Amino acid sequence: MSGKNIVFLVLLLFIPVSLAAHYLEWGDLIVFVTAGLAILPLAAWMGAATEEIAVVVGPTLGGLLNATFGNATELIIALVALNAGLVNVVKASITGSIIGNLLLVMGLSMLLGGLRHKEQTFQPIVARVNASAMNLAVIAILLPTAMNYTAKGIGEATLQYLSVAVAVVLILVYVLTLIFSMKTHAYLYDVGVAEIETEENPHPKPNIFLWSGVLLVCTLLVAVESELLVDALEVATSQLGLTALFTGVILVPIVGNAAEHATAVTVAMKDKMDLSVSVAVGSSMQIALFVAPVLVIAGWILGQPMDLDFQPFELVAVVVSVLIANSISSDGKSNWLEGTLLLAAYAVLGFAFYFHPDVGGLG
Amino acid sequence: MSGKNIVFLVLLLFIPVSLAAHYLEWGDLIVFVTAGLAILPLAAWMGAATEEIAVVVGPTLGGLLNATFGNATELIIALVALNAGLVNVVKASITGSIIGNLLLVMGLSMLLGGLRHKEQTFQPIVARVNASAMNLAVIAILLPTAMNYTAKGIGEATLQYLSVAVAVVLILVYVLTLIFSMKTHAYLYDVGVAEIETEENPHPKPNIFLWSGVLLVCTLLVAVESELLVDALEVATSQLGLTALFTGVILVPIVGNAAEHATAVTVAMKDKMDLSVSVAVGSSMQIALFVAPVLVIAGWILGQPMDLDFQPFELVAVVVSVLIANSISSDGKSNWLEGTLLLAAYAVLGFAFYFHPDVGGLG
Amino acid sequence: MSGKNIVFLVLLLFIPVSLAAHYLEWGDLIVFVTAGLAILPLAAWMGAATEEIAVVVGPTLGGLLNATFGNATELIIALVALNAGLVNVVKASITGSIIGNLLLVMGLSMLLGGLRHKEQTFQPIVARVNASAMNLAVIAILLPTAMNYTAKGIGEATLQYLSVAVAVVLILVYVLTLIFSMKTHAYLYDVGVAEIETEENPHPKPNIFLWSGVLLVCTLLVAVESELLVDALEVATSQLGLTALFTGVILVPIVGNAAEHATAVTVAMKDKMDLSVSVAVGSSMQIALFVAPVLVIAGWILGQPMDLDFQPFELVAVVVSVLIANSISSDGKSNWLEGTLLLAAYAVLGFAFYFHPDVGGLG
Repeated sequence: MSGKNIVFLVLLLFIPVSLAAHYLEWGDLIVFVTAGLAILPLAAWMGAATEEIAVVVGPTLGGLLNATFGNATELIIALVALNAGLVNVVKASITGSIIGNLLLVMGLSMLLGGLRHKEQTFQPIVARVNASAMNLAVIAILLPTAMNYTAKGIGEATLQYLSVAVAVVLILVYVLTLIFSMKTHAYLYDVGVAEIETEENPHPKPNIFLWSGVLLVCTLLVAVESELLVDALEVATSQLGLTALFTGVILVPIVGNAAEHATAVTVAMKDKMDLSVSVAVGSSMQIALFVAPVLVIAGWILGQPMDLDFQPFELVAVVVSVLIANSISSDGKSNWLEGTLLLAAYAVLGFAFYFHPDVGGLG
Repeated sequence: MSGKNIVFLVLLLFIPVSLAAHYLEWGDLIVFVTAGLAILPLAAWMGAATEEIAVVVGPTLGGLLNATFGNATELIIALVALNAGLVNVVKASITGSIIGNLLLVMGLSMLLGGLRHKEQTFQPIVARVNASAMNLAVIAILLPTAMNYTAKGIGEATLQYLSVAVAVVLILVYVLTLIFSMKTHAYLYDVGVAEIETEENPHPKPNIFLWSGVLLVCTLLVAVESELLVDALEVATSQLGLTALFTGVILVPIVGNAAEHATAVTVAMKDKMDLSVSVAVGSSMQIALFVAPVLVIAGWILGQPMDLDFQPFELVAVVVSVLIANSISSDGKSNWLEGTLLLAAYAVLGFAFYFHPDVGGLG
Repeated sequence: MSGKNIVFLVLLLFIPVSLAAHYLEWGDLIVFVTAGLAILPLAAWMGAATEEIAVVVGPTLGGLLNATFGNATELIIALVALNAGLVNVVKASITGSIIGNLLLVMGLSMLLGGLRHKEQTFQPIVARVNASAMNLAVIAILLPTAMNYTAKGIGEATLQYLSVAVAVVLILVYVLTLIFSMKTHAYLYDVGVAEIETEENPHPKPNIFLWSGVLLVCTLLVAVESELLVDALEVATSQLGLTALFTGVILVPIVGNAAEHATAVTVAMKDKMDLSVSVAVGSSMQIALFVAPVLVIAGWILGQPMDLDFQPFELVAVVVSVLIANSISSDGKSNWLEGTLLLAAYAVLGFAFYFHPDVGGLG
């Protein structure tokens, strides 16, 4: 059993601990921390189960499954938070996930990979298509913010209409991206898929019933722990002296993206930068093209109207992250300094969000 | 006779129809639509005539002719609108032309070209020089807006001085760009010119008098139809429930750029992406480096003072368009998904302008 | 003796002239101009002395010396101005130095180099690492401005804390950049260093005591002349009708960067574009990663609290400069038109700063 799996088994203990902390009322801060820790191994096994099932059902259905469940943890946390009315935290967690994937995940991958390997290279082809789609998606989800910031006197209803229109366009683009990568131009992605398979599945044929069960149980447990996390969030973060914005942009995405994080860093240290960059950029793309639009539409259905009107400084932070990530990844090479630069950018943005005045509160 | 020419001949019928609609007072909406349709074939023939004459007069004078008449339709419509005092519509049509060329024209070219050809490539050399010049020009024409938006309390006179100073610099740069492409570094552009010639002129030697006559007549007719279009614009667009901003940014450029549009898409489908991208990027560049500065100076002469102070959201839209177009075209390859991404960006911006509050009105 | 050295010797005469002008009270304008001219040869000799000493003490210590004294002139002028309370001028000179290096220095190099050589190429490797570090640094020093602009109600103390936090991160990144370029990845920079050495030091072994003396004397004289310059600045610029912002962004950096300027242009004309681009981009990077953070911390020690809250339009100008410089330098080729585009961008920004309303005054 690998060291990673032992850590995960130990972290599983936080499931009963967090439940105990909740029902025995040990305090919101303890619930918040233990529920957050409990989600980490669940997210990792959801990812593993998705991969295993994807191998059995074949590339097309498997790709679809990966694309839908790839950010399942973030989506579940966000849906629970949205249902609880924490609209501002949900919005902040969208921008935070994009920033975290591009700067923190890619930065740590390049730094730790670069400490072992002098110079690492990655095929820019997949990264490039993903990056263009991500650029578009990021820009699209930020347009309502830009419009509301530059033109005064836009009604809430107008922002909501515009947000839904943008969400529909993005989901269409997402579907087209899947068709592109799985049908018309699947050959471009062959390298990546092969690497994932040999990476994660050295055994001949996984048991689909076993893994479907794992996926189901983990999904349910993530939902339960997300409820605990969200319930305790308000009191816990105010005890820590943190704003809703900082919590949403920095804390929530670290929990939600831990699985991608671990994968990207692990494969980077094995010098598979193709896969590592693909995970980080691909995850950002999925959040912007799929998670964010789904949340806008879900918000309408749940009666928690969520538009795409972010804090203006979130817009600045995302644009900055995209520009730096593009600048560093565009040449298909990386080293430890480039990783450090991404992490430094994340640190500086983290400071800025820490000092940012609290606007609007949690909801 | 090709299908395209038959369509153009049919569209020519809208010249008498629009005149009848105007003088018989059939309503502004009908005048607006028919005059818009009548301009399409005229713009196409102006382009064709310019190309034919360019072949006869040789590369230097011909290049100059192309450079001056390349955006003649847009320039004529804008001058007529400026003379009628529709300053805001004219300004909006400048940003709209840039956005339209980069997203709509290039997007449709890459999509329709990409549906026929799996992957299309284009030489990035010409695109690169044009893109740098375009980046500069776009940034320059947006600087007065940025300054007025970030620093409060700038007088109108100051904005006008700054706009004229910027316009003079841009026209100088435009002249230098022509010297570069036609004299000192003409060899870089040889491929493109040869393609245009074999593309558009399969016959031995065009008749310069015939084509000069065609150019003259078409120019006059475009001017007449522009008058009808501009006269009917205010009532027609308010009947359609459209703002001056949306009309200027979306509707007017579609009419004004139809010729480039048709050319770029046609050659993209014949897998001549070099030429297609060159038309789209080159047209954006010409608008920013030549049309916009000429309009600023013309506005002063016509007593319709026009500065370069756009709506802040127009600035956002143009920057976004330039970033996406650069991101997608920088690698010299395209496919249908990249075309779709450009079109999606155009659609999202279109929605945003549709919902944008009406500021300032037509003039 | 080369023509350059004769010019420098003549300029040295302005040292006594400026002192006379100051003590005999010939007027602030004369003091300002003569002190500015006197700094030019001193800066050049400081640079030369640093290079000579660097050769003797070996690559590691020499690199450190170059990195620290590379922007010594700017740093001294800024420290003197900061001590005199001209906080706004110091801030403006930071952004002005970045803009000036990227647009004016690189633009003149590409233009004058391009007039002699049809197409010039440079290795993008060193430029790339520097550009990424510069992008990060530029973004980081602008974040407090962006935050203050987008989120209302941030206290001055918060901005100061954030600025110091950013400064500490940047200095750490600077140290890591030095470790990268001098230890772990020194081989990437070998070409550049070799060129500098053969360029500047054709003789066998310089006298370290002589050059240390030159460095010391020049540093002291620059400090003296900076005092004169700063003392006379307020009256002189108001006599010239210039705002503090224009003075800081345009005038001060031209004096402070004259040495880099001369070096970059000279080597560009010898077709050593690698070195030329490296000087321009490297100098921008040093200002953002080293000079600016040092000034923030020095401001605190000097009791002249200096945060990184610039004028919003300075932010626009720097972002614009970085985008254009990246766009033009990313392909590793240059020609006279690209140089002209950079200069045109500088001219347009210069006009804008000239017309920009005076906000906040000198301090």
